[in-house]
Parts: sequence; structure tokens; C-alpha cells
Amino acid sequence: MRPTMSVQEKIEQLGYRLPVPSSPAGNYVPVVESGGLVYISGQLPKREGQLLYPGQVDGAVSVAHAREAAAATLCALSAFYARFGGFDMIEQFLQMKGYVNASPDFLHHSKVIDGASNILVALFGDAGRHTRVAVGVSSLPSNASVEIQMTLRVTG
Amino acid sequence: MRPTMSVQEKIEQLGYRLPVPSSPAGNYVPVVESGGLVYISGQLPKREGQLLYPGQVDGAVSVAHAREAAAATLCALSAFYARFGGFDMIEQFLQMKGYVNASPDFLHHSKVIDGASNILVALFGDAGRHTRVAVGVSSLPSNASVEIQMTLRVTG
Amino acid sequence: MRPTMSVQEKIEQLGYRLPVPSSPAGNYVPVVESGGLVYISGQLPKREGQLLYPGQVDGAVSVAHAREAAAATLCALSAFYARFGGFDMIEQFLQMKGYVNASPDFLHHSKVIDGASNILVALFGDAGRHTRVAVGVSSLPSNASVEIQMTLRVTG
Repeated sequence: MRPTMSVQEKIEQLGYRLPVPSSPAGNYVPVVESGGLVYISGQLPKREGQLLYPGQVDGAVSVAHAREAAAATLCALSAFYARFGGFDMIEQFLQMKGYVNASPDFLHHSKVIDGASNILVALFGDAGRHTRVAVGVSSLPSNASVEIQMTLRVTG
Repeated sequence: MRPTMSVQEKIEQLGYRLPVPSSPAGNYVPVVESGGLVYISGQLPKREGQLLYPGQVDGAVSVAHAREAAAATLCALSAFYARFGGFDMIEQFLQMKGYVNASPDFLHHSKVIDGASNILVALFGDAGRHTRVAVGVSSLPSNASVEIQMTLRVTG
Repeated sequence: MRPTMSVQEKIEQLGYRLPVPSSPAGNYVPVVESGGLVYISGQLPKREGQLLYPGQVDGAVSVAHAREAAAATLCALSAFYARFGGFDMIEQFLQMKGYVNASPDFLHHSKVIDGASNILVALFGDAGRHTRVAVGVSSLPSNASVEIQMTLRVTG
């Protein structure tokens, strides 16, 4: 009980809140668990169902783009919470994929996706230290600026 | 025996057939299984070795593009069948990645990739309900319109 | 002891060396192992910390681009070695993701990423035979030409 509250308290201390989980945009599910492996579907940066700041990321890295990656991460955690009813069973985040809707000359994918990674490390400590892939893509669903996908391990 | 036939009957009922498995385009293998986890290599929409409707997806979503995603899914299932000799051992589809060769202003990745997701749910029911990531990419091998990758769990 | 040396000897026989491991470009870790599954973060083609031949891949496939994919693979193996102290515990490479920074008319992703796949098969034989996904992306961190991500299984 305490650790679950603790994660949510930390989310508030970071200036965020766990959003209402989004409905999948198609014929898929938000979360699948099998043999302790948990896959979370790709998440766009939404707050209360509204997409935040859509459009291609270009030019200088702005704090806003890193916050969009953070928002997508909170959507992923919200999907996890809706499925598991807490965060205590998280053993280790394994991998994050960060897709940035970026122009061909964009260079700072790592700084944008750090907005997502920072959340996991701040909330979960060592269990939040994940491997990562960050790439630039030519478009994302609904013209979102970023999409975040996570795979993690939960205890039996 | 019956469930295996059943999947193939359902494929025919949907108006499709399981295609001849494609040879990998490089120095890799179509399927790897390890500890019950099965990874299938990315599949392009081919029928009898011929790429279907290559080119970038843009403008309005057409039924054709969703059918290309379905065709790539059937190629993945064909690769699975060639390795396992049936579908009975499928416990759960875990994740689908759908890459759409899309122009920067394309918005409807989810509708295109639903062509792939619908097949899994129609054929496998709850075991076919997967998590998903859909993104737009600037190019695909051989100028394919979509590429589909799947990870699933089989029984021991 | 012998097999570990053997992999490194083979690397030298191929005309390569295991590079110094790169520091992650953000708030993530190079390698996570959990339950025998090993995820390695996406790797750019670097040698002694320097990015090799950045820029978009277009036109004809050159040997150089395949060598960049090979260099990224060696970075992934270097990250693995830094974590595990050898290669003996590798049971099976499961999946490689190859992202090519490519123009929309590029067709030869498979040939570029074979530069990465060939290394694994040459070094590890059957244990190196992996599934693969190769796509073209509109940009990569630091304007890298390719990014390679791997997932593998190690023995308990």
C-alpha cells in the first residue's frame, strides 16, 4: 500500500498527475502481461484524452517537448495502474522506445526522450533504470509529437 | 488438430489464404523461439513472393492499405506455421509493431494497422488481443507500404 | 575462458576491434538483464566515442554503410561485455532492430543492416541467428546513419 501511494505522491511532487487512461485508438489492448513480462502499447502525450501540442519537433529542443515525452510516460503508467491496481509489483523497467516526430535535420532525440526517462528514474529508482532506443520518425498517429513504448518485468 | 484446422478455416472465411513463407531478405531468420517467447521478423505485405501495392501511404485511408497490413500479418502467421507446424501452441500475442511508409502529414496509422490487428483478434480471440505500437517511417525495404512485427508467447 | 577469447579473436579476424563502450546519451543504461532476457540500448556507429560517417543514407548502397551497421553492432557487443565480462553466457540472439537514416526513395535497408547481422552470425554461429526488423527513419540522434538495437537470451 505505502509504495503505491508513494509513487503517486512522487508524481504530484514532480508537478504531474496520473491521467485518466486513454482508450486504444484501434483493435488492440493497452497492456498485456505474460510470464512476468509486461508490454504497454505505444502512448501519445495526452491529458484527459486531449493530445498535447501536436506537430513535428524541429529546431532547438524546448522544455515543452521533453514535457510531452513525460506526459506520454504518465499515460503508460496510467495504463499500467488500470491493469494492476498499483505499482508495487514492478520489478524492473526493461526497455523504452521513444519515437520523435522530427524533421530530417533534428539532432536532439535524446534530450526529448529524457523527459520520459527522467520520470521513470525519479519514481522508481534503480527499478526505473531502463535501456532505450530513440529514433526520429516521419509521422505519428494524430500528428503527435512523440510516442513512448515500454516493456517491464513484474514479480510473479 | 481441430484448432489448427480451425485457424486455417477462419483465414479462408475472412477471404484470405496463408501465403507461401517468404525467404528472409538478408542474413537473419524468420522466427526465433526461446523460453516460450517467439519473435517473428518484420514482414512486408507479400502474396506468393510478390510485394503488394508498394509506395508511400498518404492522403485518405483506403481499404487497400489496411488489406496490405493484413497481408503482412498473414506472412507472419505463415512464418510461424512453417516453424511450429500449427497454431495450437499459441498462448498469447504480446506485441505488434506496425510501421507505415507515410508522408509527414499522414494521420491515420491506427486505421491502417487495424488491418493487421483485426486478423489476430478474428483468428485467435482473446489470445490475439495484443499491445501495439504504430508509427510512420520515411521508407521501408523495397518501398513496401507497411511492415509488421510480432512477438508472442507459446506454451512450454 | 577459451570461448570468450575466441569471440574476441574472431572480431580481430574480421578486421574489427571491440570498441570502448560509449556512455549513454541520456538518463538510461546500456544493458538490462532480467530473467535471462537481455536488452541492449540502441547503439550508434561509434569508434572510440567518435560517430562514424554521420548523415542520411541515400542512393546506392555502399560498403561504408554496411560497415557503419557493423560498427554499431560492435558497440552493442562492447556494452554487453562491459556488463557480463564475457560472451560465454550468450544462449541466443533473439531480435535485432535496424533503423536506417534514409531518404524516402531508399530501398536497400536489408543490405545495410546485413552489415550488422553478418557480425552476429560470424561470431556466434547458430546462437547469432536472429530475427530482424529493418526500417527507414527520418532522423537519428546526432545525425547518425544507422542505429542498432538487440535483444538476446543468456543462460541462467
